Amino acid sequence: MASNRADLAAMMYPVSRALMAAELPILRTHEISMWGYAVLNTLVEQPIHTQSALAKEIGADKTRIIPVLDELQERALIERTPDPDDRRARRLAVTDAGRALRDAVQADIQRGEDRLLARIPAADRTAFLRALALLAELAPEEISYLS
Amino acid sequence: MASNRADLAAMMYPVSRALMAAELPILRTHEISMWGYAVLNTLVEQPIHTQSALAKEIGADKTRIIPVLDELQERALIERTPDPDDRRARRLAVTDAGRALRDAVQADIQRGEDRLLARIPAADRTAFLRALALLAELAPEEISYLS
Repeated sequence: MASNRADLAAMMYPVSRALMAAELPILRTHEISMWGYAVLNTLVEQPIHTQSALAKEIGADKTRIIPVLDELQERALIERTPDPDDRRARRLAVTDAGRALRDAVQADIQRGEDRLLARIPAADRTAFLRALALLAELAPEEISYLS
Repeated sequence: MASNRADLAAMMYPVSRALMAAELPILRTHEISMWGYAVLNTLVEQPIHTQSALAKEIGADKTRIIPVLDELQERALIERTPDPDDRRARRLAVTDAGRALRDAVQADIQRGEDRLLARIPAADRTAFLRALALLAELAPEEISYLS
C-alpha cells in the first residue's frame, strides 16, 4: 500500500531539531543554555518542589539538571527555599529577574518563529498551532500506536 | 512580554520523540531498525549513488549507516550495484522485497498515526498535515531566526 504522506515522526523530528538549532544563537545572546531556558520556562508556569520533579518535567537527567540550577541560582534567576510542608524538599521558583530573562528570550524566539510561520497560509497556520498544542498536551504514553 | 503560546520547539520536540517511540513496537514486529526503515523509505523515493549521500539524506553518521546497509543487503531488501556513470560509486536501490516491507511497516505506522490524528478536529487535521509537510520540505538552514 503506497501512502500519499510521509510518516509524522519523519516529518516532525527533523523540523523540531532544526527549530532547536535556530534557538541557539538567541540563547547565546542572552547567555543562557537550552536547559537553563527550559527550567525558567517551567518555573514561570509553576513553582516546583523537588529537583527530580523538575528534571522529569523538562525531560532531563537529574544529575544534568543540578549544575544548571546552581548556575541559575548564582545568577539570581531562580530561588531554592525550604518547603514549609516538607523539610526535606526545597521549593524551586523563578525570580523577577529570571522571569524577565525568560520573557526576553521567548520574545526573540517567537519573533523568529513568527517569520517562519508566515510561510504557512494564515488559515492553515492557526489550525497548525491549535493541533500542535493539542498533541503537545498529550502525555507521552497517550501517543501510542498499540491498539 | 508574556506570550500566549509555547515555543514551537518546546511543543514539537517532545511530540516527535514520543512519535518515534510509538514506532518502535511496530518496527520490532517487522524485525527492522529505525535506521533500516529510514533507509528503505529514502530509497523508495529514489535510488542513491553513494553511502555518504544516503547518510546525509537520513541525518545519520556514515559509519553508523554501513552496518545497516550490510544487513539490509544480506536480507535482500536493498541492492548495491556498480554505478555505470562512476566506477567508484555504487548505486543503492530498494528491492521489491524491501519495498514490500517498507509498505507494510508504513501501513502499520500510519494506522496508528491516524488514530492519534483522530483526536484533532477534522478541519484542523488537514491544515496541520499540510503545514507540517510544508515545514518538513524546508532545508534545515531555512529554519533560522537570524534576520
